[in-house]
Amino acid sequence: MTTEGKTVGELAALVGGRVVAGDETTRINRVASVEGAGAGDIVFVEGEKFLEGARESQASCVIVPQGAKLEGTACVIEAARPKLAFALMAEVLHHRKRFGGLIHPAANIAASAQVGDGVYVGAGVCVGVGARVGAGTQIHAGVIIGDDVTIGRDCVLHPNVVLYDGVTLGDGVILHAGVAVGADGFGYVRDEAGAYRKFPQVGTVIIEDDVEIGAHSCVDRGALGETRIGRGTKIDNLVQVAHNVRIGERVVIASQTGISGSTVIEDDAVIGGQVGMGDHARVERGAVVGSKAGILPGKIVRAGTVVWGIPVRPLDEYKRLNAHFGRLPRMREEIDQLKKQVKDLAAQLSGKGKQ
Amino acid sequence: MTTEGKTVGELAALVGGRVVAGDETTRINRVASVEGAGAGDIVFVEGEKFLEGARESQASCVIVPQGAKLEGTACVIEAARPKLAFALMAEVLHHRKRFGGLIHPAANIAASAQVGDGVYVGAGVCVGVGARVGAGTQIHAGVIIGDDVTIGRDCVLHPNVVLYDGVTLGDGVILHAGVAVGADGFGYVRDEAGAYRKFPQVGTVIIEDDVEIGAHSCVDRGALGETRIGRGTKIDNLVQVAHNVRIGERVVIASQTGISGSTVIEDDAVIGGQVGMGDHARVERGAVVGSKAGILPGKIVRAGTVVWGIPVRPLDEYKRLNAHFGRLPRMREEIDQLKKQVKDLAAQLSGKGKQ
Amino acid sequence: MTTEGKTVGELAALVGGRVVAGDETTRINRVASVEGAGAGDIVFVEGEKFLEGARESQASCVIVPQGAKLEGTACVIEAARPKLAFALMAEVLHHRKRFGGLIHPAANIAASAQVGDGVYVGAGVCVGVGARVGAGTQIHAGVIIGDDVTIGRDCVLHPNVVLYDGVTLGDGVILHAGVAVGADGFGYVRDEAGAYRKFPQVGTVIIEDDVEIGAHSCVDRGALGETRIGRGTKIDNLVQVAHNVRIGERVVIASQTGISGSTVIEDDAVIGGQVGMGDHARVERGAVVGSKAGILPGKIVRAGTVVWGIPVRPLDEYKRLNAHFGRLPRMREEIDQLKKQVKDLAAQLSGKGKQ
Repeated sequence: MTTEGKTVGELAALVGGRVVAGDETTRINRVASVEGAGAGDIVFVEGEKFLEGARESQASCVIVPQGAKLEGTACVIEAARPKLAFALMAEVLHHRKRFGGLIHPAANIAASAQVGDGVYVGAGVCVGVGARVGAGTQIHAGVIIGDDVTIGRDCVLHPNVVLYDGVTLGDGVILHAGVAVGADGFGYVRDEAGAYRKFPQVGTVIIEDDVEIGAHSCVDRGALGETRIGRGTKIDNLVQVAHNVRIGERVVIASQTGISGSTVIEDDAVIGGQVGMGDHARVERGAVVGSKAGILPGKIVRAGTVVWGIPVRPLDEYKRLNAHFGRLPRMREEIDQLKKQVKDLAAQLSGKGKQ
Repeated sequence: MTTEGKTVGELAALVGGRVVAGDETTRINRVASVEGAGAGDIVFVEGEKFLEGARESQASCVIVPQGAKLEGTACVIEAARPKLAFALMAEVLHHRKRFGGLIHPAANIAASAQVGDGVYVGAGVCVGVGARVGAGTQIHAGVIIGDDVTIGRDCVLHPNVVLYDGVTLGDGVILHAGVAVGADGFGYVRDEAGAYRKFPQVGTVIIEDDVEIGAHSCVDRGALGETRIGRGTKIDNLVQVAHNVRIGERVVIASQTGISGSTVIEDDAVIGGQVGMGDHARVERGAVVGSKAGILPGKIVRAGTVVWGIPVRPLDEYKRLNAHFGRLPRMREEIDQLKKQVKDLAAQLSGKGKQ
Repeated sequence: MTTEGKTVGELAALVGGRVVAGDETTRINRVASVEGAGAGDIVFVEGEKFLEGARESQASCVIVPQGAKLEGTACVIEAARPKLAFALMAEVLHHRKRFGGLIHPAANIAASAQVGDGVYVGAGVCVGVGARVGAGTQIHAGVIIGDDVTIGRDCVLHPNVVLYDGVTLGDGVILHAGVAVGADGFGYVRDEAGAYRKFPQVGTVIIEDDVEIGAHSCVDRGALGETRIGRGTKIDNLVQVAHNVRIGERVVIASQTGISGSTVIEDDAVIGGQVGMGDHARVERGAVVGSKAGILPGKIVRAGTVVWGIPVRPLDEYKRLNAHFGRLPRMREEIDQLKKQVKDLAAQLSGKGKQ
């Protein structure tokens, strides 16, 4: 990251905000936390309860929600959504490093590969036969790009990413260190002798525009068709995406989640960390799956629902069941007491019968 | 992958199948899915219910189970096990790329290393002192091979695999991108000052013939002895195999499973994804462990059983317990009702007693 | 690893032990397991029950607890804590390979980088602008070090480690193959159009002295502040440490555990494998979290407690609840029986009432 300054007035204009205190020509160099900020920094507060902390911040500017009262700080910008405003400002203050089309002499680019304008290629990078790399893309050291791979414009491939032959990335894709795209899916057939023979893994992977994938996550190629990750989807570190999975647009998947073969996650779903999904499952549009949940093969999680547990149930139901689980010892005691009472009653009744 | 054509007749002969319709000199170039197939493609159907789809496929040939009726497709091959036949055909249609003994000039091979005939060594590869690489093995770009490593014939090491010093791979081993073999096991002893001192991790790893390991999986070296993965075993992505684990032959382990130190998995076991196994556990021959299951340290899963849950129980028992879990609120209501009824009965009886 | 010999007497002196049998000038070359040992090897036994096995060992020396009786072995050393003594001896017998300041000609070191005395830099390594590497550190092949990274003395960076710009490692840090330090944290804000915009990830990572991190583990940079791992902490393979997490000193974290953003783990905590921690949680000093446990966001695990389950509960409670869970079918039967008995009693009582 590198930074370049903007004035408070420029930043406010960028996000449709309003400077309500201070000198709008004040220069801002970077975003910061309320506690860690110093001169030249801008910070944000989301709600009233954080205003107190902001008053003591050394930041040069604070973004606050509309109508919030904040005095004693150099500059104040009101914005409808301070956190979003802050993120948008960070995009201009901390832009990506620019490398101006540098191709490292220790890179290995096949003669038939097409590399666009302004592409950065770091040391030790390999770009395979017939590969195409769009303008402005950054390929950092140690990245291995197979044959016939297609990469869009303005992507960033961090060090040691591996793209197997034939996979496709759209524009603006960010892959963090070590991401592996296009390894064989995990499919075998036992032969007559009991040995596992590889089911063909000859499909491909398509990653659409503006997808970001965290370090060491794996996206396997389709067995016969494709594995696809939709536009604007964000995937955390160490996530497993198996063969023929289809993930929609604007899906969020937290760390260490695993998605088995041919499962579908529709647009705008939110998936927690360490979730496991069996094969051929479906998470419908906008559904939310809590961390560590387990989704059975073939299961459908309905659109817009929130589910949790192993196996998943509606969140409210699961929480209620968990509460009951925690009271099992009490239930046990009550049953024992009932047994005793019933026995006593029976004895009394039998005694009366004899009377 | 590259492809070369075979005729329908040749493919049928390869799998002991029978051409029951169409011209057996028809040329087939690749395997495909029923939906995605075109001219020159071969597809398969496993059961009667998929025949309808196959009728509309554009494939040049369909493999069907014996006795299945399929008309209107160019060629039909009957086979005892269509999926297996399809996999075997794929092996010949889509064979591995051949590199003909190319050693990239940007590879770093120690003078004392022995590299067999026809070995491919990609850019940036390091092969350590005293290492031996068997004939026909492919070592893709960025692979780092330590000193005194032994690699068999016809292996494929995908980009950025790391083999620490002294580990051994058999013949036909496939390691996907980033697999790490031989890192130190996770073992420490606290010293008098409370600091963790490394318990020696000076053992090794032996991976037998025809093992395949998925991207970013880790196989740690034995602390003193060895970690071993048996012939024909298949391991998915992001799996953790700790020090001194012994995995038998033809074991299948799905993604993100973790196996703690000294645990044993016997031949033909099947382990789901995200399973966790404590140390010194044992999964006996042919047992099946469901996804996300948790096996306690020292636990023995008996041969041929199917287990699930945290901690594991026999599958049927676990499913029954889960069903009871889901009905806890009803159980709670019934107990409350019983308490009320018993109280009423007691009151009635007491009333009668007073009569 | 390489080894150099020591005498039994020297080794005993090293750990404050006492040679109680055999010739203390006997030369020992390496540590071994009781079963695998041969001439020149030293082994240990922790308790009386293992003495039998040690009697049959081919080792040249056995370390035993004080007062243990062991005859028929060449040499015997008594030590207060045999396993610790064994680990300390291994440190001198099996010391790290020394490379004597070798810089591989295929390394790429920025002109402005400062590299200390005796630093080893392997093939294909990149060291960025302004980076500093302390004396005696080993940077193995394929490691990528970003700009302005600081690395202390006597560290070992195994192959293909990636350090993003600006991160800091203390002295004696060991990072295994593929560890990724400083990738962007997973934080986004939805904009007005519903797209996820990156929340700034412009903080850093600080890893203190003597930390060891296993293969393919990921430590994300702080969003605004820092992510920190305290001195002497040991982390296993495939662990996820999210942005702004703070881990104390001498913490142990087993494989495949994931720690969400801003969570704090205090000194001397012990965390099992496959544990998941929500964001802003806190594990207090010395607490123990069992494998596969799930800690909800914001949850505090109290100092010194032992917890397990999803979500976590005190271990004893969780075990009791699990036992009740296993007896749910019996509980169900008892309730059914009670219902029948109560119905019978009511009928009898009603019958009596009619009499």
